[in-house]
Amino acid sequence: MRCDRVWRGATLATLDPARPGLGVVEDGLIAASDGRIAYAGPALDAPAFEADEVIDCEGRWITPGLIDCHTHLVFGGNRAHEFELRLAGASYEEIARAGGGIVSTMKATREASEAELVASAVRRLDALLAEGVTTIEVKSGYGLSQAAELKSLRAARALGAARPVSVTTTFLGAHALPPEFRNDRGAYVDAVIAMLPEIAEAGLADAVDAFCEGIAFQPDEIARVFAAATALGLPVKLHADQLSNLHGAKLAASFGALSADHLEHTDEEGAAAMAKAGTVAVLLPGACYFIRETKMPPVELFRKHGTPIALATDCNPGTSPLTSLLLTMNMGATLFRMTVDECLAGVTREAARALGRLDDIGTLEAGKSCDLAIWDIERPAELVYRIGFNPLYARVWRGK
Amino acid sequence: MRCDRVWRGATLATLDPARPGLGVVEDGLIAASDGRIAYAGPALDAPAFEADEVIDCEGRWITPGLIDCHTHLVFGGNRAHEFELRLAGASYEEIARAGGGIVSTMKATREASEAELVASAVRRLDALLAEGVTTIEVKSGYGLSQAAELKSLRAARALGAARPVSVTTTFLGAHALPPEFRNDRGAYVDAVIAMLPEIAEAGLADAVDAFCEGIAFQPDEIARVFAAATALGLPVKLHADQLSNLHGAKLAASFGALSADHLEHTDEEGAAAMAKAGTVAVLLPGACYFIRETKMPPVELFRKHGTPIALATDCNPGTSPLTSLLLTMNMGATLFRMTVDECLAGVTREAARALGRLDDIGTLEAGKSCDLAIWDIERPAELVYRIGFNPLYARVWRGK
Ligand SMILES: [Zn+2]
Ligand SMILES: [Zn+2]
Repeated sequence: MRCDRVWRGATLATLDPARPGLGVVEDGLIAASDGRIAYAGPALDAPAFEADEVIDCEGRWITPGLIDCHTHLVFGGNRAHEFELRLAGASYEEIARAGGGIVSTMKATREASEAELVASAVRRLDALLAEGVTTIEVKSGYGLSQAAELKSLRAARALGAARPVSVTTTFLGAHALPPEFRNDRGAYVDAVIAMLPEIAEAGLADAVDAFCEGIAFQPDEIARVFAAATALGLPVKLHADQLSNLHGAKLAASFGALSADHLEHTDEEGAAAMAKAGTVAVLLPGACYFIRETKMPPVELFRKHGTPIALATDCNPGTSPLTSLLLTMNMGATLFRMTVDECLAGVTREAARALGRLDDIGTLEAGKSCDLAIWDIERPAELVYRIGFNPLYARVWRGK
Repeated sequence: MRCDRVWRGATLATLDPARPGLGVVEDGLIAASDGRIAYAGPALDAPAFEADEVIDCEGRWITPGLIDCHTHLVFGGNRAHEFELRLAGASYEEIARAGGGIVSTMKATREASEAELVASAVRRLDALLAEGVTTIEVKSGYGLSQAAELKSLRAARALGAARPVSVTTTFLGAHALPPEFRNDRGAYVDAVIAMLPEIAEAGLADAVDAFCEGIAFQPDEIARVFAAATALGLPVKLHADQLSNLHGAKLAASFGALSADHLEHTDEEGAAAMAKAGTVAVLLPGACYFIRETKMPPVELFRKHGTPIALATDCNPGTSPLTSLLLTMNMGATLFRMTVDECLAGVTREAARALGRLDDIGTLEAGKSCDLAIWDIERPAELVYRIGFNPLYARVWRGK
């Protein structure tokens, strides 16, 4: 059988749901044709491949390429100075006067050109790719105007042209209230809804997200945005129950959302509703760590109800300036007591599910995109256990 | 004036104690001769150098090369599986039966050859060097027999030959009680003391350390080890007050220790005694993070009394499998509320002080070793603020 490339002599963590645990295959073989997996499984059972290139993995491990399913990678400016001022004891007023907070990111994002947004995001993207990431999700949400949100989404799409990585984009107009709407949140929600048709028509967003919180938007406002998105055929996601329980998990489930994210304050009803709707719980330990949150998401409830769990960096300048998915896994284990298998599934199979792309990526199964991470490790637990150590040997995106 | 190499067009964070804060010099210049700093300061005030090579830093920042002043980098085996079992709910007995715990590391360290110890430590060392580390301290303490402790110290010294980095070594025979002394701790303390003369004579250790804790050694036992070390002219350090307050800080200060390390439970008397003795507080946030410690070291007390504060990875397989000094700084800020300036001084000037090497490294001052880290950043706060991002542009060790 003809194929482009064969990797042999590897142990595979296929994440194939038909196999137990990580779906481990000893003495495994992967064959790629036209960027897709032609075969992934035991070498002994493989057809006889005639390949242009055969790569001996010398006992290394292969996992699916990692997927960061929740990032705010595109933004202008830099909030390091605000971090410094806060540690030095500055008050919120002093930080605001020094130009801090989300409004400072909004201003810098509006002022930046699309090329500038791409250039600053590429550095963050490269950090993720160096750890074997082959797919990322990128949200808008720092423009908060029609023009700046469109620019952010175009910059996100451009990342996929700048580097060998799949990018899915999410429109997060309902992220924060821009100052010009300070006295009329309803009018800004109307404005967000009015942005949707152009975004949908231009194919700039693969999903629509919102931030459901006392400091952001109310459930009824989000329901209006979600109804408009759904009418345009766009799937939804939600920043839910991070700082308080506004029953965002249940709201997301009621719209059949791909995912509800954060979930520190989600209750059992919410966890059960998500499981029933197939809505993935995307947990973001980097944000818990950075803001020193003590309330952790109810992992036990998700386990009890069978809610799928994914992990992501939430890379953003205000609450999670994190660009390591390996470290995210360690935080998932250390802070949330997730198991090694849950962490690894959370950045592969379940992250793919959270993007609605499980048919194409997230496991090593024939027919899927040949996105691989090849590791210099003796066992997958090392990927979760170590802190600040990158054992990536090679990264393969679409068979190359 | 002749010199080997000049770096110009840089902003310097000299950490020179004669300058305020980080000792920032705009439009700075560094000249190196024979591996040492011939000049570091404003370009305008610099002598006219005739250099073999002139490097334009194009506005980048230069800090002293980073110093990791507390590591257990040399050990055999791998504890990732133990981590995995614990997350999966295994009991201590089950983990011990599966070969976990410090005894498993001791066994693997005893079984490993010196070359094997070097080979496994080099991978961890490379992760540190990639972030601009130019000096590391390495402790023994997993051999726990004369032969295995000597082998570990030789392996630590060999790291300095394997890579362009300065290595200082510390003998930590009093780290844990090996099983063969299970019923006679005093006899093991005698054995540790008996190891000292050969180690001193062979020049294998630059300092002597011990672990003062209920689960390790008592203050009177440590005093015996320290007295013997001092008699041989070896400076001392101490793992102190990590899990309980046995007044280890005060004990260390009473021996004029270079540093007391961990210090989560240190009281005001201990902090004051350390300040008076010039004993550096080496804080290890990676261990707090990994074991989910809620008691944090008393940074306020160290500030109040003027106790110098350093930060280190504590890289070790049981409680801090951490190989990133950048992340350590972020943890110092996030978990301990240290300021940006304290974090940066903690991995440069104060780390040098904790090794008794401030005369040679740790700041950008004429006469010191020309160990530099050159960064692609707009301000030093970025080095502390970001998580899992490495903006190192170049690393210079001894002028190269
Ligand atoms: Zn987010
Ligand atoms: Zn230690």
